[in-house]
Amino acid sequence: MVTIGTLGSHSALNILSGAKDEGFETVLLCEKSRKFYERFRVADEIMYLDSLSEIKREDIQEKLNERDVILVPHGSYISYLDLDFLEDEFSVPIFGNKFLFRFESDRELERKWFLKAGMRIPRTFTPETIDRRVIVKYHGAKGGKGYFTVDTPEEYFEKEVEGDVQIQEWIHGVTMYFHYFYSPLQKELELTSIDRRYETTADAVHTFPDREPTYVVVGNFPLVIRESLLEQVFDIGDKVVDASRNLHEKGLIGPFCLETIVTDAPEIVVFEISARIVAGTNFYVPYSPYTYAKYFEPMSAGRRIAREIKMASKEERIKDVVS
Amino acid sequence: MVTIGTLGSHSALNILSGAKDEGFETVLLCEKSRKFYERFRVADEIMYLDSLSEIKREDIQEKLNERDVILVPHGSYISYLDLDFLEDEFSVPIFGNKFLFRFESDRELERKWFLKAGMRIPRTFTPETIDRRVIVKYHGAKGGKGYFTVDTPEEYFEKEVEGDVQIQEWIHGVTMYFHYFYSPLQKELELTSIDRRYETTADAVHTFPDREPTYVVVGNFPLVIRESLLEQVFDIGDKVVDASRNLHEKGLIGPFCLETIVTDAPEIVVFEISARIVAGTNFYVPYSPYTYAKYFEPMSAGRRIAREIKMASKEERIKDVVS
Amino acid sequence: MVTIGTLGSHSALNILSGAKDEGFETVLLCEKSRKFYERFRVADEIMYLDSLSEIKREDIQEKLNERDVILVPHGSYISYLDLDFLEDEFSVPIFGNKFLFRFESDRELERKWFLKAGMRIPRTFTPETIDRRVIVKYHGAKGGKGYFTVDTPEEYFEKEVEGDVQIQEWIHGVTMYFHYFYSPLQKELELTSIDRRYETTADAVHTFPDREPTYVVVGNFPLVIRESLLEQVFDIGDKVVDASRNLHEKGLIGPFCLETIVTDAPEIVVFEISARIVAGTNFYVPYSPYTYAKYFEPMSAGRRIAREIKMASKEERIKDVVS
Repeated sequence: MVTIGTLGSHSALNILSGAKDEGFETVLLCEKSRKFYERFRVADEIMYLDSLSEIKREDIQEKLNERDVILVPHGSYISYLDLDFLEDEFSVPIFGNKFLFRFESDRELERKWFLKAGMRIPRTFTPETIDRRVIVKYHGAKGGKGYFTVDTPEEYFEKEVEGDVQIQEWIHGVTMYFHYFYSPLQKELELTSIDRRYETTADAVHTFPDREPTYVVVGNFPLVIRESLLEQVFDIGDKVVDASRNLHEKGLIGPFCLETIVTDAPEIVVFEISARIVAGTNFYVPYSPYTYAKYFEPMSAGRRIAREIKMASKEERIKDVVS
Repeated sequence: MVTIGTLGSHSALNILSGAKDEGFETVLLCEKSRKFYERFRVADEIMYLDSLSEIKREDIQEKLNERDVILVPHGSYISYLDLDFLEDEFSVPIFGNKFLFRFESDRELERKWFLKAGMRIPRTFTPETIDRRVIVKYHGAKGGKGYFTVDTPEEYFEKEVEGDVQIQEWIHGVTMYFHYFYSPLQKELELTSIDRRYETTADAVHTFPDREPTYVVVGNFPLVIRESLLEQVFDIGDKVVDASRNLHEKGLIGPFCLETIVTDAPEIVVFEISARIVAGTNFYVPYSPYTYAKYFEPMSAGRRIAREIKMASKEERIKDVVS
Repeated sequence: MVTIGTLGSHSALNILSGAKDEGFETVLLCEKSRKFYERFRVADEIMYLDSLSEIKREDIQEKLNERDVILVPHGSYISYLDLDFLEDEFSVPIFGNKFLFRFESDRELERKWFLKAGMRIPRTFTPETIDRRVIVKYHGAKGGKGYFTVDTPEEYFEKEVEGDVQIQEWIHGVTMYFHYFYSPLQKELELTSIDRRYETTADAVHTFPDREPTYVVVGNFPLVIRESLLEQVFDIGDKVVDASRNLHEKGLIGPFCLETIVTDAPEIVVFEISARIVAGTNFYVPYSPYTYAKYFEPMSAGRRIAREIKMASKEERIKDVVS
């Protein structure tokens, strides 16, 4: 039988506890400093590495393949492994479609995806055409730092920007992050849960209004959306799944997230995508109100992934859920 | 046996999943654009309508009555059906007391209810008597738009107000929404759960302080209250239930919500009531910490309603829980 | 068999529902005005008192000892009972280590604990040395009132401070409260859950920016932390437990909480400790995502305490978990 594995970070507790719920053996690949995973009971085996990028080592890949491991990817895969390697050389099967990770980490590719999907997204500007409040994002800005807002070309040029930036329309509204799961076996898009990110220092900006805030995500709050807006939520989810098939033949597989701002229209404006599980799902272990209304049992994002692997295994369709 | 039904909006997932938990057959009346309900497994039957107001059609009412349907009302009933029709002509039994809906949708009637109950509510002013910060609310202001704040009569008159408004004392504090359930069978008031609404653009006002915020509710955050304040919470709940019997002989039945601001006294100031289930309960499927301490099993607001219908049915007292 | 008891306030629903989950008899000591506890089913017996401080009465202590009661302490014990009495004269066994309560209620003792633990804490200043934004806290400031912020010695002296204050570096970031459980039986530190406090009027300060906010805690929001930060979370938890053995031979026993601010480094800065259960755990009844990844069953803070008492009882080590 398949063993479910992942890297020790991001949503590993969620992924592996869900795997245990479905009866899988589990393995965690983990930096030595992260001994804390031993305090939980999610990993049947922990393989300690000096650094997460050691997962590139051939002997480690072999070991994982011998044990029939499927790795469940999360945000740290994209930060710590290089995508060329992951796509071309990595031999361990990855749950989901790894060929779409590139589209979440490159703003231009991401924008093409969104345009193909045909959803409401923020307008972009050149410095000269700024005619409203905009947020300026450095390409590859890491961890929410290095953003700033301006209202006019003059203000923009005062900032002495260096390097590549994207200038986006500032959307006036509140953030919401929608966690989806697309099942290639059921050919169905599900809503797993919703969160609002907890960003330091932005969420304390009222306590110190004279500083430009940073947007470093350090946590996630659970919430539910006004039910009538689920129509829009599923509509944009469906569009993103459909459009993904133009980017790679297999399209989206499993969990993904749309990062949005909800205006007072109310309209949902998408500004980012994650093509794999997001940390906002971590709260919903073991239950989520949205999965309960479908499964009537505990169903976390991690468990949903494991359930898909189990079904695929039974139907001998593993190749349809990994890449 | 009774079938539990509702309209496809607001808290339908909550209501129908709770009905399934208690073993009921369920029916959803739903606009054609809301196909998304099919992605969940809460409705044994979905009747698609061109518009929710089609529920007024005689043939639809007959169909529902033939199937022994009890409809569970929520916020969209009050927005989409007119109250005269609901009170006088609609023949399908409604869970709860539909004769109180009028009191939540008319600010003057609502205020009478509160005064009869004898709770702390915001003072009201005429334009000339404004002597502190006030919030000005248009009557029938829809969905949280069209509110504004002023501090003096002069500021008020600058706004060139047209139409009917209510001028309320601005209460300095944080919002909390208390979800109650009054059981006419047990003659007991329960606390189901608590939420804080997520309002766009108000909850992002710190990101754009120069605009007047709007208060469009697009989601709900779960939370718990400081336990010593439960004394006040049950006190105001009891008062509202008692006073409701002066408004209609049956008084409040089932779920209702008090919308409040908690000051740093700390004192709970009530500014609004909903005389039926609120969307803030949607998070608490299947569990809430407050219902757990009473039932020691999963107990959502939707399930609590279904449980009451089941008990009433057993005791042949259905007429005591519907109107 | 042991009976689990507590005072009617703070986290009594959590503590007693957890005791019922583990099969214990329960007793609640409660002020007469708090009849609301009867609406839940957590207390097998309720002993009504005129005031919580009546628990000092010898006949009440005797009664509790006859019934083999272990009291689970919470925030109200520290507010309503005096610590000298609790340490020297109170004869009923208290779960946890009551000799550490003194260290949470005295800012200087607390600071010594933190310094011994060697964690990042806010710098302190004398009025003359203020060279950055600081928050000034009166000693024994009750319930979050009487704090203010200044940026310079001049601003400080304008405030005409009277009495003892502590002048702390203002940490720019968002608050998070970590709920731990240290098991002396398992010799293991667990993470139970995390919350963010809901403070009036501070959390509405953007609606009324011209007033100095107060910080009265009236509720708690649940959340999860970015998983990679769990390394720091367990590191500071371990340090606090280790250092506690220098303060009292038994050290910390059972639940405690570190009150922190998370900067955009991201770094966790500890500004306060609670040496017993905190109200932020009240949301997590019956489940928490962190306890699920260890126990794979419902495990609230209250239940975890009861479980420890049960294990200690079985192993005849009750004296190791009470004081």
